[in-house]
Amino acid sequence: MAKRKDRMGLWIVGVRGSVGATLVAGLAALRNRPNETTGLITALPPFQRVGLVDTNAIVVGGHDIRSETLLSAVQGLHRRAGLFDESAIAAWTPELRAAERNIRPGTLCAASEPVRQLADQACAIEDQSPVDAVARLTDDIRAFRLRHKLARVVVINLATCERPTRLTAATRTFSGLTQALRRPGARVLPPSAHYAIAAVEAGCAYVNFTPSRGIEVPALRERADRLGLPYMGRDGKTGETLVKSALAPMFAMRNLAVRAWVGQNILGNRDGAALRDARTCSAKTRSKGQALSAIVPGNPHTCVSIDYVPSLDDWKVAWDFIHFEGFLGTKMSMQFTWQGCDSILAAPLVIDLARLTDLELRRGHGGCMRHLAFFFKDPLDVDVHDLATQWTMLVDHVTQSEANLPSNKKPAPHSNRGSAVRRGSKHNAPARTRIDTTRDVR
Amino acid sequence: MAKRKDRMGLWIVGVRGSVGATLVAGLAALRNRPNETTGLITALPPFQRVGLVDTNAIVVGGHDIRSETLLSAVQGLHRRAGLFDESAIAAWTPELRAAERNIRPGTLCAASEPVRQLADQACAIEDQSPVDAVARLTDDIRAFRLRHKLARVVVINLATCERPTRLTAATRTFSGLTQALRRPGARVLPPSAHYAIAAVEAGCAYVNFTPSRGIEVPALRERADRLGLPYMGRDGKTGETLVKSALAPMFAMRNLAVRAWVGQNILGNRDGAALRDARTCSAKTRSKGQALSAIVPGNPHTCVSIDYVPSLDDWKVAWDFIHFEGFLGTKMSMQFTWQGCDSILAAPLVIDLARLTDLELRRGHGGCMRHLAFFFKDPLDVDVHDLATQWTMLVDHVTQSEANLPSNKKPAPHSNRGSAVRRGSKHNAPARTRIDTTRDVR
Amino acid sequence: MAKRKDRMGLWIVGVRGSVGATLVAGLAALRNRPNETTGLITALPPFQRVGLVDTNAIVVGGHDIRSETLLSAVQGLHRRAGLFDESAIAAWTPELRAAERNIRPGTLCAASEPVRQLADQACAIEDQSPVDAVARLTDDIRAFRLRHKLARVVVINLATCERPTRLTAATRTFSGLTQALRRPGARVLPPSAHYAIAAVEAGCAYVNFTPSRGIEVPALRERADRLGLPYMGRDGKTGETLVKSALAPMFAMRNLAVRAWVGQNILGNRDGAALRDARTCSAKTRSKGQALSAIVPGNPHTCVSIDYVPSLDDWKVAWDFIHFEGFLGTKMSMQFTWQGCDSILAAPLVIDLARLTDLELRRGHGGCMRHLAFFFKDPLDVDVHDLATQWTMLVDHVTQSEANLPSNKKPAPHSNRGSAVRRGSKHNAPARTRIDTTRDVR
Amino acid sequence: MAKRKDRMGLWIVGVRGSVGATLVAGLAALRNRPNETTGLITALPPFQRVGLVDTNAIVVGGHDIRSETLLSAVQGLHRRAGLFDESAIAAWTPELRAAERNIRPGTLCAASEPVRQLADQACAIEDQSPVDAVARLTDDIRAFRLRHKLARVVVINLATCERPTRLTAATRTFSGLTQALRRPGARVLPPSAHYAIAAVEAGCAYVNFTPSRGIEVPALRERADRLGLPYMGRDGKTGETLVKSALAPMFAMRNLAVRAWVGQNILGNRDGAALRDARTCSAKTRSKGQALSAIVPGNPHTCVSIDYVPSLDDWKVAWDFIHFEGFLGTKMSMQFTWQGCDSILAAPLVIDLARLTDLELRRGHGGCMRHLAFFFKDPLDVDVHDLATQWTMLVDHVTQSEANLPSNKKPAPHSNRGSAVRRGSKHNAPARTRIDTTRDVR
Repeated sequence: MAKRKDRMGLWIVGVRGSVGATLVAGLAALRNRPNETTGLITALPPFQRVGLVDTNAIVVGGHDIRSETLLSAVQGLHRRAGLFDESAIAAWTPELRAAERNIRPGTLCAASEPVRQLADQACAIEDQSPVDAVARLTDDIRAFRLRHKLARVVVINLATCERPTRLTAATRTFSGLTQALRRPGARVLPPSAHYAIAAVEAGCAYVNFTPSRGIEVPALRERADRLGLPYMGRDGKTGETLVKSALAPMFAMRNLAVRAWVGQNILGNRDGAALRDARTCSAKTRSKGQALSAIVPGNPHTCVSIDYVPSLDDWKVAWDFIHFEGFLGTKMSMQFTWQGCDSILAAPLVIDLARLTDLELRRGHGGCMRHLAFFFKDPLDVDVHDLATQWTMLVDHVTQSEANLPSNKKPAPHSNRGSAVRRGSKHNAPARTRIDTTRDVR
Repeated sequence: MAKRKDRMGLWIVGVRGSVGATLVAGLAALRNRPNETTGLITALPPFQRVGLVDTNAIVVGGHDIRSETLLSAVQGLHRRAGLFDESAIAAWTPELRAAERNIRPGTLCAASEPVRQLADQACAIEDQSPVDAVARLTDDIRAFRLRHKLARVVVINLATCERPTRLTAATRTFSGLTQALRRPGARVLPPSAHYAIAAVEAGCAYVNFTPSRGIEVPALRERADRLGLPYMGRDGKTGETLVKSALAPMFAMRNLAVRAWVGQNILGNRDGAALRDARTCSAKTRSKGQALSAIVPGNPHTCVSIDYVPSLDDWKVAWDFIHFEGFLGTKMSMQFTWQGCDSILAAPLVIDLARLTDLELRRGHGGCMRHLAFFFKDPLDVDVHDLATQWTMLVDHVTQSEANLPSNKKPAPHSNRGSAVRRGSKHNAPARTRIDTTRDVR
Repeated sequence: MAKRKDRMGLWIVGVRGSVGATLVAGLAALRNRPNETTGLITALPPFQRVGLVDTNAIVVGGHDIRSETLLSAVQGLHRRAGLFDESAIAAWTPELRAAERNIRPGTLCAASEPVRQLADQACAIEDQSPVDAVARLTDDIRAFRLRHKLARVVVINLATCERPTRLTAATRTFSGLTQALRRPGARVLPPSAHYAIAAVEAGCAYVNFTPSRGIEVPALRERADRLGLPYMGRDGKTGETLVKSALAPMFAMRNLAVRAWVGQNILGNRDGAALRDARTCSAKTRSKGQALSAIVPGNPHTCVSIDYVPSLDDWKVAWDFIHFEGFLGTKMSMQFTWQGCDSILAAPLVIDLARLTDLELRRGHGGCMRHLAFFFKDPLDVDVHDLATQWTMLVDHVTQSEANLPSNKKPAPHSNRGSAVRRGSKHNAPARTRIDTTRDVR
Repeated sequence: MAKRKDRMGLWIVGVRGSVGATLVAGLAALRNRPNETTGLITALPPFQRVGLVDTNAIVVGGHDIRSETLLSAVQGLHRRAGLFDESAIAAWTPELRAAERNIRPGTLCAASEPVRQLADQACAIEDQSPVDAVARLTDDIRAFRLRHKLARVVVINLATCERPTRLTAATRTFSGLTQALRRPGARVLPPSAHYAIAAVEAGCAYVNFTPSRGIEVPALRERADRLGLPYMGRDGKTGETLVKSALAPMFAMRNLAVRAWVGQNILGNRDGAALRDARTCSAKTRSKGQALSAIVPGNPHTCVSIDYVPSLDDWKVAWDFIHFEGFLGTKMSMQFTWQGCDSILAAPLVIDLARLTDLELRRGHGGCMRHLAFFFKDPLDVDVHDLATQWTMLVDHVTQSEANLPSNKKPAPHSNRGSAVRRGSKHNAPARTRIDTTRDVR
């Protein structure tokens, strides 16, 4: 059992959504049945003895602009998407209510129209300026840490996908940025970046599980680097893109020329509704398109479409058609259909990211956590998209760093490795063996 | 351009089949358009400068029990399966005819009924005893080598899948085996093993691209090991199993519990017809089932069925349904359909195997070529089935051995590595980096 | 509200199975929410004013050889297949318990091994001879009718599929049959036929929703004809075959030559388990194969396979691949995947059959109910398999007979029409118009 | 053998496209092998003795704005899409060249940008005003008729889909329309309507196989009605929509509530390229959406998307996902993938339409040919979309009209029937029997 001083905070931006609610339910379920860890990567043997925080020691809080309770969100998933049992929900209710008390209103400052339409007045504050917003959000996180006596806090963004934005010159330096954010109603950055600034200002690690901007503002990353805070993103790899990143290397290794890879995604939850906004959707499809072009040579024709199908609710169906050419110019094809439940796939990954990020905090590592590329559609600073190599990067980092902890805040060893990975050079590369998820590496 | 003394022989058992005919056509096509190497793994950058034989330097011959010419086989694929162009076939005709002259009659000694039904009288000899058969087959291969002044010969088995057989005590020692094979009409071993013995006796390397017995007779392997001859098998991984070996690791790495993986294969060529024989089919489905259980933990329910659908001819359609459980016991599913042309997928792999095996011969390596597991459904002496790790094993072996050639016939370095791989230990494991099929490793 | 004298009995052979339990649950649900009639064909406009019995007036009882209660069966479907809500099950419990009191032990007389393995001792009686069994079963049905003061009783067979059987000469006449069934332990007929005899002897209508023998014994049909009792079968058309019967006519109408139609079915319930018995399975696949060959000309290659996949439980996944040739010999293909829940699809059809058969009883019609071909994979005495024509036969019969009720037990008008249908002649055919499921025909 | 005086002309707008070229090739193939009629509906038994023109008696000519020859189009289909044999193409060359001589330049008057980009200067004339264009086009058709001594000419539009247009008040009367079309460069109507006017002015029947405007201008239809000319449209039903119209009635007849029907179409030919223009695409998706909402009650969520995938060339792949609810609110799903070759599917339908329209001309029928709804995605004046009923309408009309030819130009009997069909009333409805494509109805 983890001791009190070891408890970590998991602060979720957009905590009342399906993923956030499923995550809180899932932590409650793990308390009762600690062996039912299906879907949790950090429960696999390679991560058994590296010193990850116990899932019981995770205290959840967060921001949200909607007023629906976690309990009601979980009940809605049951009613509309057929998830969970009524009796299981009853068993989880105390934990859902406890996390409920840790939720604070989000900010509407600089929010676009589609986001505003999701907001409930009581929970969404029109902060005067971004700086006001950031101050308030930072205070919320700090209060959470104090109240629960948490050693470390990881902030993870699960809020609905934003429209993509461009960065202006004002965002280049942190002081310039702070200046610009003082202007009332300034739309210099989108809301996700305001939450990211608050995370950094509160001394937390930050992970962006969505395609939104988040921490990807050069001045902000620089500040996190200087403060030695770990961070990573972007856009959790839960379904179709996950399959792509496992399957596309096969075509490359077999020298099969992919001529087209077309994907159609249909889903019915709040994310799906948000993606009806064409500008928001462009952020998502861009992120989904990353993996493929990096893996398969020959510049195949690709297109990814996303449609909102209300009756599916939290279920996502993806159909991918792959047209490829083999020996002597012969055209062949492959297609797959993925039928997965978004929250169920995403929630354990968020728990994994919380635990793995917490580990970095405890090891005193800061900066971009490139070894977490495995979790993301469009991983920050990493152009490795094939799943097997990402797995090796993850296992090697987590297990090797342990043996060889840095004395202090000097540059973490993985930053060198990261760049080696990017260069595609094998010289500094970590030793590795087969993909073996069944054995403990130590 | 490869010099004459560098030419290698590729002796194919079952050369008149679709794969053999496509292979000869493909070599002819590569002569005219050397850059159209799609489907050829050895054309990828990692294999560029390791010293593989030029595809122009491969001379093809073989055994067969059927009388259809290679040209007619290619025309049949055009007519029935829609492959190739009439004008392309015309351009390849000289090479098809040249290879035709290198074909010798096969043996019916110990052949089962389904195999006998394929035979044409003029081309299938009822050798009195297996020893007689082996002697005749060996002479054919030796004559081929002499006539074409070939430095090295690789024998590859592409003949129609046999019924599975059990080995008796008589096969334990090579002398005992030879004794037993003297008896007229002895059915101690199936025909594929007779061809394998001939290959070894003729001093050739041997590769079994089918699920048949081939070289997998302990006494025979021992003899090949002693003679320093390289060999490998079993059952080329061309379609559904290839996809499985790329996809199954994804479920393992994500800790998703695969509850069932069901595959249905339909095909219409001679292989499909042979698989209507229930006993023959059992050999195939067993081989197809290997990969999965080795990769996905939790003992999923699996079943693979194969049906003969004449109208598909050389096309194979596979539908796989994967039922898996995620977080909180939620059941989800994935399905894929693979529509590939068997000969087109297999023929370049056979060329790859010929070139890679030839490389081992030239490097003086003997024994089981475990590094070729990448090519097989049920690789000999290797229990690594995930494609990415198999790729690493292949690239590492081919590129490292080069730098570091063994002085002579002392045990090849890869034998140690092989066992390390089997132990799943990382300590002797080869260094590796990302799966990068686009760059030359040196 | 239906008056007491109008209540009908629905006696189900194999009532404790998934379909039977879902049916009782469904009737309870309809009592509370009479408008939630999705899946119920008799709720469509054409059947609104033809005088069908109210679903509230159906009293359910039956035989079974297993001891699991209906409530437990429903709870099992919830737990294993994700059907229903705990609160809904609670609301249905009184009706499930009421039906429970109407269940009597089944017979093991002449049962084959796979059926015996399903039996629980307390509920499965080893009647000495078939005649003893029939007498006991008949008494059970009569007692049910008396106790509940039921005007009419329809017996429907839902019991697990039997192995196919051959009829001996002894079954040609009813007296010969009765004689043969007197012998202790006689295996002249399979159990399903014993239940069918009991139904006829108790003066009930009979419907066979399975591929088992049931009433298909010439002497037994003759007796039912003479007694003026309506009957029909065989094998409810719930999923893959339903789709086939809707889709295959398209290929015929477009003159597209179907070369192959291959189906793979996977399922995980008791039916699936029973079908692991090769002989039982042959009964099923034969029945599934009927529709296609009758609709698509040109004798396509067909094959239907069924595999047991426990994790699917009551869900059935069918994949069909259709290979067809169009203009100028061009080969094209279509494939579909059907993912349906067996009990949910079957239960409302059984309610429909009960109501439509009850209507025949009230109208004084006897004999083979050919107009119900719409519901069956292999309809008795009907070789029309395309769904649209079957629909027209159904609607025409139900709506026209009404206007024009026979004075008494003289031969029902539909027997002539039935034979016209079989002759494919249009001269006596019913007038019809478009398939219009949205409007009341009168 | 048809006598000379019986020859009909088939004038195709957009004749140089894939469908037009395949059609001419197909007529040549039928000359050599008259029994290879797969794909030709009019070769089915119900149409055997109704007096259709022999396919040998069809003379093809047409307009086009592109300069590629028919032979080159056919060769391109061979090279890029794998259709046909080189030797077959050689055999068809004389007929392809003969038809080539009957091709005249099209008009660019009022053409939109995407259409202009397809044009080759030599073949596309910038007529000053629509009236000039119509006059020139009419002369071309008349000259064709005279030169070949054709008894009747049917004009069929196969030209690339246009952007949708709105009709102004000027188009209400034919005189107003003519006036408006005199203005140089007038864009009152899109080009497809100019061709339709020319067809009517030349005294031809007209069929619109595309979603373009064509004859759907009230004043133009009125004129065709007055002249007793038959016409029909819109948008040939070749693939995905065909399957929908066969499958959707199944859900209606089984009272299964379709919650969503989502379709994704990918294709790579000129049509696909044109549909990259968002406005053009809207015309197509609107047309594709018609069938479904008319058949399935309950207003399911539908969406149809079309993407251009160059490597597919003339092949079209459609994936449809159908989400439906059954008994007790249980959600289930079905999906299908259709892989068809557009030209191969469309060309025989165009031959069928030519023959069936020619029959109307010879029978002296004019006006909207509602009985041809079977062929169209969005049939003019018909809201019957289910394929089985459309089939009955077609067979009944063609076989009954024959027995009972109108004395002269008095209103054709089918106009009454048509409206009966639309009312869904059964009182005036034609008698019919089972869908039987295998027997001759007479």
